[in-house]
Amino acid sequence: MQNFEYCNPVRIVFGKGQIARLAELIPQNAKILMTSGGSSIHHNGVYEQVMEALRGRHLLEFRGIEPNPRYETIMKALKLVQAEKIDFLLSVGGGSVLDGTKFLAAAARFEGEDPWDILAKNAEVKTALPIGCVMTLPATGSEMNGFSVVSRESTEEKLAFWSQQVFPVFSILDPEVTKTLPNRQVSNGIVDTFVHVCEQYVTYPVDTPIQDRQAEGVLLTLVEEGPKVFADPDNYDVRANLFWAATVGLNGWLGQGCVQDWATHAIGHEITAFTGTDHAQTLALVLPALWKHQRREKEDKLVQYAKRVWNIEGENRDAVIDAAIEKTVEFFKSVGIDASRRAYGVTDEVCRKIADVFLARGTVLGERGNITGNEVYEILQLAAA
Amino acid sequence: MQNFEYCNPVRIVFGKGQIARLAELIPQNAKILMTSGGSSIHHNGVYEQVMEALRGRHLLEFRGIEPNPRYETIMKALKLVQAEKIDFLLSVGGGSVLDGTKFLAAAARFEGEDPWDILAKNAEVKTALPIGCVMTLPATGSEMNGFSVVSRESTEEKLAFWSQQVFPVFSILDPEVTKTLPNRQVSNGIVDTFVHVCEQYVTYPVDTPIQDRQAEGVLLTLVEEGPKVFADPDNYDVRANLFWAATVGLNGWLGQGCVQDWATHAIGHEITAFTGTDHAQTLALVLPALWKHQRREKEDKLVQYAKRVWNIEGENRDAVIDAAIEKTVEFFKSVGIDASRRAYGVTDEVCRKIADVFLARGTVLGERGNITGNEVYEILQLAAA
Repeated sequence: MQNFEYCNPVRIVFGKGQIARLAELIPQNAKILMTSGGSSIHHNGVYEQVMEALRGRHLLEFRGIEPNPRYETIMKALKLVQAEKIDFLLSVGGGSVLDGTKFLAAAARFEGEDPWDILAKNAEVKTALPIGCVMTLPATGSEMNGFSVVSRESTEEKLAFWSQQVFPVFSILDPEVTKTLPNRQVSNGIVDTFVHVCEQYVTYPVDTPIQDRQAEGVLLTLVEEGPKVFADPDNYDVRANLFWAATVGLNGWLGQGCVQDWATHAIGHEITAFTGTDHAQTLALVLPALWKHQRREKEDKLVQYAKRVWNIEGENRDAVIDAAIEKTVEFFKSVGIDASRRAYGVTDEVCRKIADVFLARGTVLGERGNITGNEVYEILQLAAA
Repeated sequence: MQNFEYCNPVRIVFGKGQIARLAELIPQNAKILMTSGGSSIHHNGVYEQVMEALRGRHLLEFRGIEPNPRYETIMKALKLVQAEKIDFLLSVGGGSVLDGTKFLAAAARFEGEDPWDILAKNAEVKTALPIGCVMTLPATGSEMNGFSVVSRESTEEKLAFWSQQVFPVFSILDPEVTKTLPNRQVSNGIVDTFVHVCEQYVTYPVDTPIQDRQAEGVLLTLVEEGPKVFADPDNYDVRANLFWAATVGLNGWLGQGCVQDWATHAIGHEITAFTGTDHAQTLALVLPALWKHQRREKEDKLVQYAKRVWNIEGENRDAVIDAAIEKTVEFFKSVGIDASRRAYGVTDEVCRKIADVFLARGTVLGERGNITGNEVYEILQLAAA
C-alpha cells in the first residue's frame, strides 16, 4: 500500500424526504444564494421542496448554470454574491451546478486579482464560502469531493481545480428525485461512475485488498442494478444503490493507497472538446480501447477484474482479458451506451487532432506515464469503429 | 436502503514515516498535552519520533491512561489541562488512550457540573478540545470515529458516549510501529475488527449491495492477511492492510443505511466485567453462539456470508450456516484465539449473573430486539464449553 492522506468532511444526508432537513442544516442567519441550472428542478418537485424547507429565510436565487459550467456565467453570479453580501451557497441540481458553485465559492473569497487564476495558474484557495448541496443526479460524485471543472467560453478552455475548501458542508441525496431523470442522464451516470472506479482500480497492484474489493463491490453493484433501473424506473432501492455508487465512486475512498490512472478521462475530455460528445459516452468509447492497448501494463488487475467482476477465469490470460473487455462493452450497451467512433463523429482527422493536442502539450498519461499523443492515436484506432 | 446521515471529518495520515508530519498537523502556537498509556511507546521508537517532530513546541505530558481507561485517571489529567491552559490534546497509543483522551477533551469544555454526566446521563457535548492521534494498535477503530468507552472504578461502571465533537482532527497510522506489538494484541485486534464488521453486516437484508460487499471485503482481507502476520511479522503490507481494516471496520462507513446488531458486544462487555477476559476474546466466544441462536433471524445474511466469505453453498441452508460458523471459529483459532467458557472462567453461575444484569435493566438486544436476559443465557449455553 502506498502512503496516503484523506480528509472528507462532507455531511451526507441520504434518503427519502431529506430535503426538508435544509432548514436545520443551513445556519439560521445565513444570507443564502441558491444556484441552479435548467428547468428540471421545476418539474420534479425539488424546487418546491427547497422553497418549503427555507420559507422565511434570507434567500436569493441564481439560475442558469449550464452543463459544463462556464466561467462567464459564474462571474455574473459573483457580482450578485458581492452585491448582496451572500455568505452561504446552496447548489440545487447536478454535478455541473455544483462544480460551478464550488468555483463561485472560491472566487468569492479569492484574494488575488483574477479568480481564473484558480483554474489557469493553480492559485491557492485559502478559504471559500460554505456550500450546501441538494444533488439531483447520480454521476459525478461532486457531492462528496473537492473537485470542480469549469469552462471558459472566450478561450475555449476547460480546466479543473481541487481544494479542501470547496468540499460541500453537507450534501442531501434523495433517491426519489432521480426517478424522473431522462434515460440518457441515467445511462451517462452509470457509465461515468463505472469508469471513475476503473480509473482508481484497473492499474497495477500495490497490495491493497480492501480498496480493490470496495472497487469491485461498486462495479458489481452497477452491473446488477444498472439494467434494473430501465426495467423498473420506480424502484426506490435501485435508485438508492445507484446514487450511493456514484458518491462512493469518486469520494476518494476507493483509491486511497492505490495507483491511479485517469488517462481515459483525459482522452475523453478532448473528444468532447472536438465533437461535443457526452462525457460518459467518450469514456465508454475510450476505456475498452485503452485496456486493449495497455493489456500488458494492466495485466494483473485486468485478470483480477475479469475474475471478480465477470467470473471469467482461464489459463490464457489474453483470452480472459479479451472476454472481460467484451463483457464491459456489453454492459455499457445494456445500460444504453453503444459507443463507436462513427456514432460520435470521431473521424480519423479528429483522432489526429486529439493526438496532436497531447503531443503539443508534452503530456504523458497513464499510471506508468507511457501514453503520449502517439499512443493516444493508437488507442483511438482500437476503439469501436 | 435505510435513510442515514454520515459525517466523518478525521484527516487520516497513513503510512511509513508519517509521525514526522505532527509538526505541521498541530497548530504552531498550540499548548499541547500529550497523553499516553504504559511503556510500549518507549520501546518501539514512537515516543522518540513524536518528541523529534515536536521539538521546541509547547508540550506537556500525561502518562498512565490504562487499558479500559478510568474516569479517575482522566480527572487527574483534567486538572493538568486546566492548570496549564492546554488547548490541544495529542493521544499517542492505542484505543484506550484515545478513548480516555476523547473524554478528557469533552470534559475540559463541559459546561455542566460533573463531566461524568456525559457518560451517565448522556449530557450534550457542545464543544471539546481538538484531538490529534498517533494510533499504535489496529483494533478499535477509535482513530476515525466519535466513540469513547470509559470506566469508573469507584462504581464499577463502564459507559460509552459518542459525539461529533470528539472525532480526532487527524490520526496518523504508521503500520511500521505495529511490528513490535505482542501477539496477543495483534490477535485481539484482528478478532475485534472482524466482529465490528459482522455487527454491521450479519443482520437482515435491506438491499445494501455496496455496503455488504465493503463489509465482505474487510472480512476476506482479515481471513487472508490475519494468519500471515504471525508467519511473517515484518511484512509491511500485511501490517498496513490489517491497520486499514481496523479503521474501515469501525469508521461508520460500512454500516450506513444498514440494519446493525451489536448484541455480541453488549454480552461480551458483561463477560469482561465479571471475569476480566480480554474484550476480543469475549467476542470470539459469543459471536458463533449468537449466530447459532439467531440463525432464523439472520438466515439470509448468514447464507450470504457463507457464500461470499467462505465459498460455502448448498441446498441445506442450515448445513451451510453451520459450516460457516465452524469456519469462523477456525479462523479465530488460526489467529490465536481459541475461545471457550472454561478457558475464561465463564461458569454457569457467571452466565446466570450476566443474564440477570440484562433482565434487571430490561435491555433488549439485537437488530430485531428479541434478545432479553433469558436469550442471553441460552446464547451463552450454546458457546463452546
